[in-house]
Amino acid sequence: MNKGLSIVILAGGIGKRFYPFVTDKSMFPFLDEPIIMTNIRKFVRAGFTRFVIVTNDTNDKAIRSLRLPEAMIETVVQKNPGGMADAVMSASPHVLGGPMLVVNAEDVVDESLYTSLASRIRKKQPFVVGRVVHDYFDLGYLVLASDRLVNIVEKPGRGNEPSNLVNLVFHYFPYADNFIDYIKRAKTTRDDLYEQALNLFTKAFPVSVISYDGVWSPLKYPWHTLDMMRAMLATLKPGKGTHVDIRNNVILEGPVRIGNNVKVFENTKIVGPTYIGDNTIIGSNNIIRESMIGQHCVTGFNTDIARSYIGDNCWFHSNYIGDSVLEGNVGVGAGTVLANFRLDEGEIQSSIVGDRVNTNRNKLGAMIARDVRIGVNTSIMPGVKIGTNSLIGAGLVIDQDVPEHSFCMGKQPFEIKKNTRKVTSQRAAYKAKL
Amino acid sequence: MNKGLSIVILAGGIGKRFYPFVTDKSMFPFLDEPIIMTNIRKFVRAGFTRFVIVTNDTNDKAIRSLRLPEAMIETVVQKNPGGMADAVMSASPHVLGGPMLVVNAEDVVDESLYTSLASRIRKKQPFVVGRVVHDYFDLGYLVLASDRLVNIVEKPGRGNEPSNLVNLVFHYFPYADNFIDYIKRAKTTRDDLYEQALNLFTKAFPVSVISYDGVWSPLKYPWHTLDMMRAMLATLKPGKGTHVDIRNNVILEGPVRIGNNVKVFENTKIVGPTYIGDNTIIGSNNIIRESMIGQHCVTGFNTDIARSYIGDNCWFHSNYIGDSVLEGNVGVGAGTVLANFRLDEGEIQSSIVGDRVNTNRNKLGAMIARDVRIGVNTSIMPGVKIGTNSLIGAGLVIDQDVPEHSFCMGKQPFEIKKNTRKVTSQRAAYKAKL
Amino acid sequence: MNKGLSIVILAGGIGKRFYPFVTDKSMFPFLDEPIIMTNIRKFVRAGFTRFVIVTNDTNDKAIRSLRLPEAMIETVVQKNPGGMADAVMSASPHVLGGPMLVVNAEDVVDESLYTSLASRIRKKQPFVVGRVVHDYFDLGYLVLASDRLVNIVEKPGRGNEPSNLVNLVFHYFPYADNFIDYIKRAKTTRDDLYEQALNLFTKAFPVSVISYDGVWSPLKYPWHTLDMMRAMLATLKPGKGTHVDIRNNVILEGPVRIGNNVKVFENTKIVGPTYIGDNTIIGSNNIIRESMIGQHCVTGFNTDIARSYIGDNCWFHSNYIGDSVLEGNVGVGAGTVLANFRLDEGEIQSSIVGDRVNTNRNKLGAMIARDVRIGVNTSIMPGVKIGTNSLIGAGLVIDQDVPEHSFCMGKQPFEIKKNTRKVTSQRAAYKAKL
Repeated sequence: MNKGLSIVILAGGIGKRFYPFVTDKSMFPFLDEPIIMTNIRKFVRAGFTRFVIVTNDTNDKAIRSLRLPEAMIETVVQKNPGGMADAVMSASPHVLGGPMLVVNAEDVVDESLYTSLASRIRKKQPFVVGRVVHDYFDLGYLVLASDRLVNIVEKPGRGNEPSNLVNLVFHYFPYADNFIDYIKRAKTTRDDLYEQALNLFTKAFPVSVISYDGVWSPLKYPWHTLDMMRAMLATLKPGKGTHVDIRNNVILEGPVRIGNNVKVFENTKIVGPTYIGDNTIIGSNNIIRESMIGQHCVTGFNTDIARSYIGDNCWFHSNYIGDSVLEGNVGVGAGTVLANFRLDEGEIQSSIVGDRVNTNRNKLGAMIARDVRIGVNTSIMPGVKIGTNSLIGAGLVIDQDVPEHSFCMGKQPFEIKKNTRKVTSQRAAYKAKL
Repeated sequence: MNKGLSIVILAGGIGKRFYPFVTDKSMFPFLDEPIIMTNIRKFVRAGFTRFVIVTNDTNDKAIRSLRLPEAMIETVVQKNPGGMADAVMSASPHVLGGPMLVVNAEDVVDESLYTSLASRIRKKQPFVVGRVVHDYFDLGYLVLASDRLVNIVEKPGRGNEPSNLVNLVFHYFPYADNFIDYIKRAKTTRDDLYEQALNLFTKAFPVSVISYDGVWSPLKYPWHTLDMMRAMLATLKPGKGTHVDIRNNVILEGPVRIGNNVKVFENTKIVGPTYIGDNTIIGSNNIIRESMIGQHCVTGFNTDIARSYIGDNCWFHSNYIGDSVLEGNVGVGAGTVLANFRLDEGEIQSSIVGDRVNTNRNKLGAMIARDVRIGVNTSIMPGVKIGTNSLIGAGLVIDQDVPEHSFCMGKQPFEIKKNTRKVTSQRAAYKAKL
Repeated sequence: MNKGLSIVILAGGIGKRFYPFVTDKSMFPFLDEPIIMTNIRKFVRAGFTRFVIVTNDTNDKAIRSLRLPEAMIETVVQKNPGGMADAVMSASPHVLGGPMLVVNAEDVVDESLYTSLASRIRKKQPFVVGRVVHDYFDLGYLVLASDRLVNIVEKPGRGNEPSNLVNLVFHYFPYADNFIDYIKRAKTTRDDLYEQALNLFTKAFPVSVISYDGVWSPLKYPWHTLDMMRAMLATLKPGKGTHVDIRNNVILEGPVRIGNNVKVFENTKIVGPTYIGDNTIIGSNNIIRESMIGQHCVTGFNTDIARSYIGDNCWFHSNYIGDSVLEGNVGVGAGTVLANFRLDEGEIQSSIVGDRVNTNRNKLGAMIARDVRIGVNTSIMPGVKIGTNSLIGAGLVIDQDVPEHSFCMGKQPFEIKKNTRKVTSQRAAYKAKL
């Protein structure tokens, strides 16, 4: 392997569209590890050892704390968060003019792509990766001449796609300084300096294209955490940690991985692929399906968690949690339901930075940030987002997003009249009810 | 058996009082078969073979599609739906003047009555059937002189009953044309031409009375489907179809009949008499009691269905469905309850074509027509009727009938204030909660 | 044992602060016996045989019906309920001037204290009992000089405690008439004549102090029933009565005592210490934890009762009943939750006779008087009290106390619009939901 190669990991962007979650996208944990760390491990397994992570003021400290014995990890704070060109420029002093592979921190792809990258890098030819798509997406499309990159066109519109390949950020440059010169030369009035530089670069140097048709799971919108969860669960290896206490009549079906000190109480069914973090307690008469549950959670009695991401320190009691994401430290009162299905069975939309966005899902529950408490018998409608540090009262129907730091209370009217009849014990009646 | 005998089946009435259901009364399915077909089979088993069904414009096509190898079934559309006299007149060309037994399409009686009818018909004497009653009902009462019918008195009022026998429509005439002459002669200003003709007829010919004391279940009001269900479940033969998948720790108690391709998941209890139709999935941790469940249903996790009629294609999730009727294609959200009991334990009333009617039941849930969706955590009050093609929102208390083609939404007020306190992870507190 | 000794049991007070419960405090049953009777048994086991119970107009009849073969029980109605001095004066004709031990009817202490009392009484020296406390309580504190009582100071305020001993009413006088003379002599403008008399008495006679550091559970506020329940469950002996029917896959964990004719249905877990009274039916898929359940109760399907006191004749259905007290004959509809935890996890307060009182608990559910019915899917907020003979509607959030004889109905607004779309059977969609 090219010892001098630097993997430049772009982790300095600000994920406004990832609201309501407060965890940095690259640090969002899956299987109890930040996604950036999982990705670095994949690079290491494919033979890469040098990493330059571009961070921002907010996530720098957390990312700086990441350690892996087999990897040399440097971090650099990006001055002007958001721009890829600026990120690469910020990284350049650490790259030392040598070969560089520019990647996103949080995109999940098949491990096989890492091996492909490693073998192509040996050719010391610039390349990009294009993912095969079978439908239109609002992304950058590769324009090709035979198998060489001509250009990248952003969001060409359905019907105008120049190819069936969209741009994945796995960009290899054998001489970093060379590409950085083009960044310095490029000019734009929009937020696409990097793309302009790449387009200039392709005019001067042959850039080849790796076509890739495997898993690709980015983290743009908050519901993408569910896609990423599913992608990662798909390869889950079943197993049990130490001091696991599984009670009578518990059914584990399919691949289930259970952390240390986990308790699973009676009459509960766990359908894999499902991951349960350390020190979590799954109560009795639960059903847990195709979900990830973090550490130190308590699911209580009679809870149903389906296809959901549950962060650390969450607790439940007789809930239905369907297709939802709970970032962490969320408490949910008895009888509360996170609904995941519209009455008209239609596609669920979500408001993102003021725009109405189609989620392309007809099953999507709530997306709830860290540090939230919800009362009993409340109903959260599909696709609702709840901001951090919020309290939601009992018996409510929450059909709109709730901003962070909210205290959401019902003003349900009721009246108390005089009861003029005697409430007697009609034992026969309620016996018959049985 | 009298080869020339025609069973004239009255199926041409319009069941206004059967609202909200849109299925024709005679075609309402029990044990996966229209009730009229079940009744025809009973006649066939007792030796009858010729049937003339009087239909109406609406149900003619469906009834015409009924087939039974052992029976000769003709259908005739009634010109003027609702009148028995008109129905018999419409049937007369098919009866060819021979012997005729006039019956309702949907009344359920013991199979033994059919055998009695067969043996009495051999005597070629006109007869009617009177059912023994022990309380007053708003029905037609038989007036007798020794064992001969004198007259039928409609709704005489409590205390004025001329006998303890009410008129069941099993009327035998050895010569149809003879009775039809009396219909032509009879005059009335009300909707009782048939009864007037019968009263004239009894003055001219001796009409004997078969006294019957067994099951009698008519379908007049929508809650009568529950009585009929119970009557039919009472003789249910237990059994299992093919490709039935019953998981661990499932309890079947009493007579339970399970159709083909049915799945019953873990920790579920089914208390008979209960019928489960083909291709239905009973989820885990359910209790199903004394109910009929149609085909292609999914009960989900943790559902309790008690003494209820569930049509085809219904789905549930953590519901309590008590003493209710769901016609078919009804979806019920998690946590929703169809309540079956008033707080004051009193008799449940229902509005029928504008009138307040006593249901003579203190346990009665909802009556829900075909094609309805109900959101999560909603409460439907006892005796409520919901019309077809309707959507009911989440978190509501529905305490009134909902017309067909309704979209019923809550306007539950809540306010969002600023939360000025920090929501912290009080792990000790919620651990202790366990 | 001193044959002439009379135990004067103070049961004549009116427990205003014990609202909403209508049962007299001394007659409140635990483990199916009025607490006064349980206490008398303890005295009998320690060798005492003569009892004079001071009652009031309301509870006199019930208390008079108490019988114990080994005990001579006399009752006397107190003229002026509420005053201890008046109570002792009322009892004096029955005490006959002999030795007397004045005690509260309903305080629960360790059985060992009864033995200590018996041995100290043999010395024929006046004494009082002081309970060791480690925090400040608003009670009467003992002022001591060496080991003799000097005085009792009511509610001295935190930091001003004269000792770490608070006054328990176990006051022994070898000559009752002697102390009664002091009552006659004492003067006060407040409700503390007894205390004034005791203070005068201590100036004339040496009164020793028994220091006691065991269980002490009084019944002042309604939530104290939970403390007393816990105290009594702590010594529960496990066992089963006759005709007990325990079905398949029922788990009994820890000390559980089950009365006669009790049924426990499938897949239910009972975690001790828990007591279940005669003729009670515990439904399937329940969890019952550290609770007392009375006689003739029906818990229904899927109910969770945790750390709660349930009186006789209560019924449930799919409820969560947390840290609550149901006096008796309470019916709770399906899906209704008695919440026991504030969103902010703070201490729960309660209004007592107009004052806001800290309950010193952060887990406390509802306190519900006898003869109450609650509808389905209703949420009762922590610490709420519901008065006797009341009906609470469906789908409500009850966040305030409800007076006795109330009919509490929601006025939840909803609107019915026209549904212009067809509700079709999207079978693929709901199949996928499974």
